Amino acid sequence: MKTLIIISHPNIAESTSQQFFLAGLDNREEVTIRHLERAYPEGKIDKVSECQLVREHDRLIFQFPLYWYSSPALLKEWQDQVLTEFTGSNLLKDKEFGIVTTVGVRQIDYLAGGKVGFTLDELMRPYQAVANHFEMRYLPIFSIHQFMYLSEKDKQRCLVDYLYYITGDSDTSLSKRTEWLLHELSKSQTHLKSGELVTRLESIIETVGEKADLLEDLKQTLDEF
Amino acid sequence: MKTLIIISHPNIAESTSQQFFLAGLDNREEVTIRHLERAYPEGKIDKVSECQLVREHDRLIFQFPLYWYSSPALLKEWQDQVLTEFTGSNLLKDKEFGIVTTVGVRQIDYLAGGKVGFTLDELMRPYQAVANHFEMRYLPIFSIHQFMYLSEKDKQRCLVDYLYYITGDSDTSLSKRTEWLLHELSKSQTHLKSGELVTRLESIIETVGEKADLLEDLKQTLDEF
Repeated sequence: MKTLIIISHPNIAESTSQQFFLAGLDNREEVTIRHLERAYPEGKIDKVSECQLVREHDRLIFQFPLYWYSSPALLKEWQDQVLTEFTGSNLLKDKEFGIVTTVGVRQIDYLAGGKVGFTLDELMRPYQAVANHFEMRYLPIFSIHQFMYLSEKDKQRCLVDYLYYITGDSDTSLSKRTEWLLHELSKSQTHLKSGELVTRLESIIETVGEKADLLEDLKQTLDEF
Repeated sequence: MKTLIIISHPNIAESTSQQFFLAGLDNREEVTIRHLERAYPEGKIDKVSECQLVREHDRLIFQFPLYWYSSPALLKEWQDQVLTEFTGSNLLKDKEFGIVTTVGVRQIDYLAGGKVGFTLDELMRPYQAVANHFEMRYLPIFSIHQFMYLSEKDKQRCLVDYLYYITGDSDTSLSKRTEWLLHELSKSQTHLKSGELVTRLESIIETVGEKADLLEDLKQTLDEF
């Protein structure tokens, strides 16, 4: 599973959430990150290379801060230039398509009866319609609300969920998640520095959390290392 | 009632529908037209003058061809630059906010059960959320499907509806529309060349059409001139 993350963020250097996720991705081989504002400071998208990138990946993620209930403008320009090239072809068919969006206000504002008046699911319909158009598989939106106010523990939990969204199976059943976690743990043993490892593992174990038997299994697996 | 039309269209010169509507507007005093791609070929929005324009008008219209179920990118950039300046103020409160969008495919594709899977009302939720945010009055969307395939008569009818959307009362009751039509007719007498006048009047009469008594009234009014 190769994932292409198209990030649109005009001030990514100042975004603690974006920097946090980028650091968490840690240059994984199976993930390509494309930051549009850096790649195209003048706003002129190179259709050919972008199309090539899209073709080479199985999962396409749009990642952006929510600006006026949608993405920053350059991601729209990307759509108008790149998606249009795929019109009439079935090259995008069966690829997965997800959205990662960071939101400055509370989640409750986006619930029915909330201040905004619409849910994120509703506000993202234009993207869902794109997925429908190309017969891509639309993944449930991954949204992060008020990242800066999360506790350190919740940030770590959020990172694990994010990594699963980017690299895990679109099936989010507990068994699939467990399988993914075990795979991540085995990789972590070799890749991560030990301080980070402990924090990461603790948060991962917490995420699986609820089911005591699975938690036991995991602990045993850990003990075996 | 002063209306500001913010048009975003990368190829407006080649758009028969946009040209048709622009010609129909005929440099009306109460309407300001702002074509973003012409005003900002490099994509750098002048916030100050745009904010000034918005403040000076009572009705704000976004007019654009539907690209991937949303506007072209420059209109999003306009939102990100200009709307953001109004955050925290009540300067937009009670202004009217409408959308004129031209769509390349049939209306039926945008009905429940249609090919797209979502209605235009659903796809435009991000704009509706903007209106909610600023306590603006969101007008029903004005959409034109497959303009190029309309008959000459339907185009004229569409133009009258468009002019009402831009300059008429947000109350679309028959009495308000009749009032508006009579006002338009009295202006037409002085402003339009006679050939155009006849065509325009005929289409206007047809639009009011159904109610025979009102049609009679209108004819009498015309006869009096």
